[in-house]
Amino acid sequence: MAALDSRGILREIGCAMSLLIKNGEIVTASERFVADVFCEKDAITRIDRNIRPPAGTEVIDAKGRYVFPGFIDPHVHVYMPFMGGTTKDSHESASQAALIGGTTTLIEMICPNRTDGALEAFELWLGKAEGHSACDFSFHMGVSRFDAGMERDLREIVQRGVGSFKVFLAYKGAFGVSDEELFKTLSLARELGVVTTAHCENADLIQALQARLLAEGKCGPEYHYWSRPPVVEAEGVHHLMTFAEMTGAAVYVVHVSCEEALQEVLRGSARGVRVWAETLIQYLLCDKTDAERPDFEGAKFVMSPPLREKRNQDVLWNGLRKGFVSTLGSDHAPFDFKTQKAMGREDFTKIPNGIPSLEDRVNLYYTYGVKRNRIDLHEFVQTASTAAAKIFGLFPRKGTIQPGADADLVVYDPAYRGKISAATQRMNVDYSAFEGVKIEGRPHVVTVRGKVAARDGKFVGERGRGQFQRRERGGYG
Amino acid sequence: MAALDSRGILREIGCAMSLLIKNGEIVTASERFVADVFCEKDAITRIDRNIRPPAGTEVIDAKGRYVFPGFIDPHVHVYMPFMGGTTKDSHESASQAALIGGTTTLIEMICPNRTDGALEAFELWLGKAEGHSACDFSFHMGVSRFDAGMERDLREIVQRGVGSFKVFLAYKGAFGVSDEELFKTLSLARELGVVTTAHCENADLIQALQARLLAEGKCGPEYHYWSRPPVVEAEGVHHLMTFAEMTGAAVYVVHVSCEEALQEVLRGSARGVRVWAETLIQYLLCDKTDAERPDFEGAKFVMSPPLREKRNQDVLWNGLRKGFVSTLGSDHAPFDFKTQKAMGREDFTKIPNGIPSLEDRVNLYYTYGVKRNRIDLHEFVQTASTAAAKIFGLFPRKGTIQPGADADLVVYDPAYRGKISAATQRMNVDYSAFEGVKIEGRPHVVTVRGKVAARDGKFVGERGRGQFQRRERGGYG
Amino acid sequence: MAALDSRGILREIGCAMSLLIKNGEIVTASERFVADVFCEKDAITRIDRNIRPPAGTEVIDAKGRYVFPGFIDPHVHVYMPFMGGTTKDSHESASQAALIGGTTTLIEMICPNRTDGALEAFELWLGKAEGHSACDFSFHMGVSRFDAGMERDLREIVQRGVGSFKVFLAYKGAFGVSDEELFKTLSLARELGVVTTAHCENADLIQALQARLLAEGKCGPEYHYWSRPPVVEAEGVHHLMTFAEMTGAAVYVVHVSCEEALQEVLRGSARGVRVWAETLIQYLLCDKTDAERPDFEGAKFVMSPPLREKRNQDVLWNGLRKGFVSTLGSDHAPFDFKTQKAMGREDFTKIPNGIPSLEDRVNLYYTYGVKRNRIDLHEFVQTASTAAAKIFGLFPRKGTIQPGADADLVVYDPAYRGKISAATQRMNVDYSAFEGVKIEGRPHVVTVRGKVAARDGKFVGERGRGQFQRRERGGYG
Amino acid sequence: MAALDSRGILREIGCAMSLLIKNGEIVTASERFVADVFCEKDAITRIDRNIRPPAGTEVIDAKGRYVFPGFIDPHVHVYMPFMGGTTKDSHESASQAALIGGTTTLIEMICPNRTDGALEAFELWLGKAEGHSACDFSFHMGVSRFDAGMERDLREIVQRGVGSFKVFLAYKGAFGVSDEELFKTLSLARELGVVTTAHCENADLIQALQARLLAEGKCGPEYHYWSRPPVVEAEGVHHLMTFAEMTGAAVYVVHVSCEEALQEVLRGSARGVRVWAETLIQYLLCDKTDAERPDFEGAKFVMSPPLREKRNQDVLWNGLRKGFVSTLGSDHAPFDFKTQKAMGREDFTKIPNGIPSLEDRVNLYYTYGVKRNRIDLHEFVQTASTAAAKIFGLFPRKGTIQPGADADLVVYDPAYRGKISAATQRMNVDYSAFEGVKIEGRPHVVTVRGKVAARDGKFVGERGRGQFQRRERGGYG
Repeated sequence: MAALDSRGILREIGCAMSLLIKNGEIVTASERFVADVFCEKDAITRIDRNIRPPAGTEVIDAKGRYVFPGFIDPHVHVYMPFMGGTTKDSHESASQAALIGGTTTLIEMICPNRTDGALEAFELWLGKAEGHSACDFSFHMGVSRFDAGMERDLREIVQRGVGSFKVFLAYKGAFGVSDEELFKTLSLARELGVVTTAHCENADLIQALQARLLAEGKCGPEYHYWSRPPVVEAEGVHHLMTFAEMTGAAVYVVHVSCEEALQEVLRGSARGVRVWAETLIQYLLCDKTDAERPDFEGAKFVMSPPLREKRNQDVLWNGLRKGFVSTLGSDHAPFDFKTQKAMGREDFTKIPNGIPSLEDRVNLYYTYGVKRNRIDLHEFVQTASTAAAKIFGLFPRKGTIQPGADADLVVYDPAYRGKISAATQRMNVDYSAFEGVKIEGRPHVVTVRGKVAARDGKFVGERGRGQFQRRERGGYG
Repeated sequence: MAALDSRGILREIGCAMSLLIKNGEIVTASERFVADVFCEKDAITRIDRNIRPPAGTEVIDAKGRYVFPGFIDPHVHVYMPFMGGTTKDSHESASQAALIGGTTTLIEMICPNRTDGALEAFELWLGKAEGHSACDFSFHMGVSRFDAGMERDLREIVQRGVGSFKVFLAYKGAFGVSDEELFKTLSLARELGVVTTAHCENADLIQALQARLLAEGKCGPEYHYWSRPPVVEAEGVHHLMTFAEMTGAAVYVVHVSCEEALQEVLRGSARGVRVWAETLIQYLLCDKTDAERPDFEGAKFVMSPPLREKRNQDVLWNGLRKGFVSTLGSDHAPFDFKTQKAMGREDFTKIPNGIPSLEDRVNLYYTYGVKRNRIDLHEFVQTASTAAAKIFGLFPRKGTIQPGADADLVVYDPAYRGKISAATQRMNVDYSAFEGVKIEGRPHVVTVRGKVAARDGKFVGERGRGQFQRRERGGYG
Repeated sequence: MAALDSRGILREIGCAMSLLIKNGEIVTASERFVADVFCEKDAITRIDRNIRPPAGTEVIDAKGRYVFPGFIDPHVHVYMPFMGGTTKDSHESASQAALIGGTTTLIEMICPNRTDGALEAFELWLGKAEGHSACDFSFHMGVSRFDAGMERDLREIVQRGVGSFKVFLAYKGAFGVSDEELFKTLSLARELGVVTTAHCENADLIQALQARLLAEGKCGPEYHYWSRPPVVEAEGVHHLMTFAEMTGAAVYVVHVSCEEALQEVLRGSARGVRVWAETLIQYLLCDKTDAERPDFEGAKFVMSPPLREKRNQDVLWNGLRKGFVSTLGSDHAPFDFKTQKAMGREDFTKIPNGIPSLEDRVNLYYTYGVKRNRIDLHEFVQTASTAAAKIFGLFPRKGTIQPGADADLVVYDPAYRGKISAATQRMNVDYSAFEGVKIEGRPHVVTVRGKVAARDGKFVGERGRGQFQRRERGGYG
Repeated sequence: MAALDSRGILREIGCAMSLLIKNGEIVTASERFVADVFCEKDAITRIDRNIRPPAGTEVIDAKGRYVFPGFIDPHVHVYMPFMGGTTKDSHESASQAALIGGTTTLIEMICPNRTDGALEAFELWLGKAEGHSACDFSFHMGVSRFDAGMERDLREIVQRGVGSFKVFLAYKGAFGVSDEELFKTLSLARELGVVTTAHCENADLIQALQARLLAEGKCGPEYHYWSRPPVVEAEGVHHLMTFAEMTGAAVYVVHVSCEEALQEVLRGSARGVRVWAETLIQYLLCDKTDAERPDFEGAKFVMSPPLREKRNQDVLWNGLRKGFVSTLGSDHAPFDFKTQKAMGREDFTKIPNGIPSLEDRVNLYYTYGVKRNRIDLHEFVQTASTAAAKIFGLFPRKGTIQPGADADLVVYDPAYRGKISAATQRMNVDYSAFEGVKIEGRPHVVTVRGKVAARDGKFVGERGRGQFQRRERGGYG
């Protein structure tokens, strides 16, 4: 079998053997029943009881297991140039880690600098992923400035299937946009019907606070928090709400970490702003004290916005359960502890930000959400898969289980018991922030478009089989 | 065929002929695809393409039509004693109206007075419905006082399958509960895992405002609003949030009408209160000026909380779209204009409250929601069916389309064009608040547990076939 | 000299000798300058530099000292029947303690039970004070029910010069009012132009929480907090705001203890409710952990609302400085530790509520407010004297220093250093919650209507010289 | 008499004749009594009854009149370069208009462009005022950028007695500061103990909205509002609150126009931000519909923030009464209608902003505030004089009546009845936005440092007698 890829190049795609998943308990955002799922080529073609497999069909016994739609991670960094080097994961390692953990589609941030061309950046990122990623993928197109050339590029990039933008209110001078550019970006986004995702922290304020802390000799990772306290994040969200209201654009606030920021999302919502909030698995399970661990151990937990006081976890769980936090992402950012995090040993502002968790997001969320009764199975699927598919225009090809949908399926074993460890993870980083943490469930089999890609913690799929997913208007419905 | 009903009496139930709905576009809260639905006895048994019907199967062509799960109205009054008389609808007329309009399950309020026994009231209401209702039904058990006898009754009623309570903070002296009783009711509800629905207006305040208005000679229907302004409703919600927080109970605020009240729901949510909000079709489409129509015409639009200023409609639509308003109900309360509403001609406080809309809820919501692009098809199904099923413990038997679920299906014709009129409605009331309003869609076929009950605006089902639905914990998951 | 008292009985009043306070730094809410103050009979007659005293004038050297207007304590309990006994202070001891501490006028709560006649209660309280109190005094008239007789009594009591009401939303069944009574009380208050002071906690909720705690074996003083958490107080304030808005009445929230409650005051203010907030010296200096002291020591710190988490202190100080908390009171409630607080040794709900502080309020406020730079001298005078005089209709007779005003003056010595101790206090209670706490300032001389009543920590005045202060509309302007 | 001015130049100052104001009702923020005020040289020296004037004393009969402290306008523009021309008032005309209207001290904004030197600008403005202004004056030092040179200049300017800064979040590219500069300005302000006043609107957003409106052909003055809706102002205030909280600086929000902005001030206050709010007489009396008057008449009412919906007036009056709006200013900006406002006839963004009202502020505030019972006399003095003196470090030399204070007095005639008209005003502009508006009160005599400067609507003082007022830390206490 062969097909044209996004550049028109002929590629071999997955063989046509059919697949039958038998007797699993199918769980989607709004259904739950026991049946068989039959897949032909890339798609689910039948869901019924007692489907008899044609000859040559691979049959998977899902009895006593859940069958979930493939999970979607809406917020991932794989390739990211950084101080002369890059992040540690390649698309090969990252996509395999994703699949082992049940994530069948990821949306990567394209993060050009202010001086880069957007189209050029898109081509660069697409080239890094295509032919290397084993899972399906899409991109949020980072907008790091706005001028006539950028507008032209963005229009073309949207045409080519990237139905969402990303802006940084933070990281001034590098990735961030001015208010004038923000207004123009949102206006264009509204015209084109694409969602704009936004990192909401005020960059100038952070720089000023960093400078003040360093000047006071406060250089350790525990001071990272104080350079970006909750009020800085809430300020960013409030700012975005104003611009979204004035432009009519639909916006998506990435990595909401605390009640203060969420309150601003709710205040915006209540006056009609079209806004979704994302939180991250890290904020649900780690807290401010982790970044205060002695001996630079805290650096493993440095991310932005920072880990918050523990009381925020209840607020975020409640938000996920009630739907006013729409999605759960990982903000995967794979930096090594020994060689990369270590660059900030004398100066917390030089610690690369991020806590790798692409591989563990789903299992941790299942264990500490569903098993601890904080969310139910439908809320689990909704926030870790379906909502992202709907908001970002992948639905119903992705994000649910129905005839005609891509056969991205996770046969999940709720009986599995294990622990997370850097020693056994597929992510190409030298530590895990969740070292030793127990998980109570794991994907038994993971399929991408009808083909088994991971089984019981191992990647067993085909390298580079992942496809770029063209996306449409999504949340604009 | 025969079965035991809730009292153990043998009843004939629907014949066993199978049903096949072909080629419709199946839409649930999180799926959308074209397929056939095959139903045997009461249940959906298969969903697949190209199902070949066994002999004797009734086949319905759904090509070009949507197939929705049967809609659920979570807030209905059918039988209600009132000033020596009662409401105009019987369970026969109400259930047929519901089915014509696409509602296959309704949850009725049992509204005993403070002096009535709860178990006795439950038996009374059940007896009124059973054998008369053509659609399935359940009840919210009204709690109008709380003492040892009431507690005993409530425990038994929950055992018998009524998994939700209803309290009135308003209507003091008749249906309302004191704060002490409210605390005890919520504490019991939490223990038993049932949701408490609440009418949130402060009764004493309303009585005082009514007395003041009447003393000032302000007696017309246009003054109803001023006896229950937004602040009275917001006060009620705020009060409930406090009691829900202190008891840990899950609560459901019925008929939220305005931004002020919704803001209190959101403030409660953000600090972790387990609360859902319901709004009504009337609040989305009518406003304060309707109740100000001259010549007592306004009385047709008197309900509580009152119709609000038009600006609130945007807030409520946005809430339904974003999910912080969970459900859409009708608060159906069938009083005639000429003989019943007229009792308040000299005194607005004597106008029976309510705007009949059980029959029209779904069509109006589809027309002015989906067709006007305020909500998408999935949000439509979610808020008019699935959410109520989940919150009130009917899911997944009701509220979705999946193998094993009850075959409650609505084959919906989006090409239909028509107008609402009292002259043609099945509800047994002498007027329609929506007289002349256009609708752009209507159920072509409505089935209840596998049997066609309504077709193209006519009831064609079996009288009294509706079954009492035992419900479990619901929202407590 | 003689005059008629409030009952028309001839009484000797203060001798006519004139008084000259020389060279003090006069500080009012909006002035600050060095001058002499000359007083004749009851009043200030001149403020000028270099006033030459007529013969027979008592001259006080105030050089290097402040001259403040006499402080006003707007919230005091002296006489209060309690479980067969009463509070420990008499009007004699309480008024002398007040004067020693710089308070020249106090407003006492009249707290009748629901069954008492209001006029009868007023006469009772007036009789207790008149002829016994050395400082001037007025009352807030407690309204513990509302019916025709009560209305008649209240109209007469207002006529007789009690220009404010007091309601309890808490203490159901004893002092509290129903919502219907609240509405009527506020409506009457508005008609008569009197301010209604309110204790804002929901009584039913407290009783339910108390019962739950006791049932769980949580009987110590540390559980008092949990029977009245911040949400209970905020609920009470929110409730009052609604009723004040609906009636147009001016209200005064006594003893605001926490941010949650203050936020509700601010939300009410911003939508136009005429509301003032009072806080207490205890909330500024003590916190929740005091009531958790071991060996029943915590009982000394049991009051309602309870002492809160320390973070609230900043909020309250900021409110006093910025004026959105208007007044500082003591809520003096003199119960002995050994014989009275001890009644709650097995059951915190039986601990009499209150922390005696009538004598210490001003010195503590000066020391930890002015000296610690949290408020300036004008804000000090404004919140501890002037604001209460204005709100409650004593101004400009009381609350400021001007020709014609009563010569209630505090010559304050900022050089004094000392400690608070039960061993040396005049209040008739066997402990001090502030035992050992340092004060940095103390009244050198305190005058009441032109006569020296206290000097350097000793009462040197005339017993029973205090007069009942007839008050007018006050805050209604 | 002669004295050294701020540059060390010898100048003639007011003659030394003494002044006696007899029998007026003296009203300060916290006193009210009938007495005589005796002034010698610049100062009040005695306040007493029956003062006998030495020979040569000018005696003014104030019987039946109020004696207020001279009013202070905290927000005035006199000199302002503008599109090649300037504002119409000189310091001569402006100061005389101020005095006629009862304002004895004004604080003018120094508004340098980003390219101007700060010290140079200060000298320029000082030179314009000194020798020309008949009333006393001070400045807010505009900070339009922040670098090492600016910091040096600001330190010197503060040393020279300008104890407050002014920043624009709006007017990007001209007067506005970046967030980095804002942080540094506030940090310096905190170090130096000066208050920072701020114009809170987001400049980029306004530019974008202006461009969009013009592109849509919306060019008339009625569109000015839509280029700066309430959300833009609220955004600015929210932004400032964040920066004030992070730096600990004390801030003063100029010209708060609406509830949305005031709510952000209150939210900041409640979490401890040291913030004051100012509103303007225009917002209390005019509204959005004024700027919608036909035939370009609306241009007379174009100012920023724009006039708002009428409902905001109640909120602002309530704020002034309750003290959470601290001051009332005029934001006087004298542009002619025919030659200057007319420049925006084809394009509302070219209409010079401002509604001249320096002369009318006090009379309008008295008439529509005190006489209409919205504020009392003390609140009137507090918000129109005393509060500004305290916040900006002029107190107690200005802002009250006490021995030693400057003899800036307004003998106010409450019996006067008249109308405002451009034909009779002293301000040098060709229209009045208040043409024909009735006033019920007017200054009978106005003195500046002991000398009569205005009488019954006429300037009768000495040109150029006004002195630059060195100011200290003010609000930092």
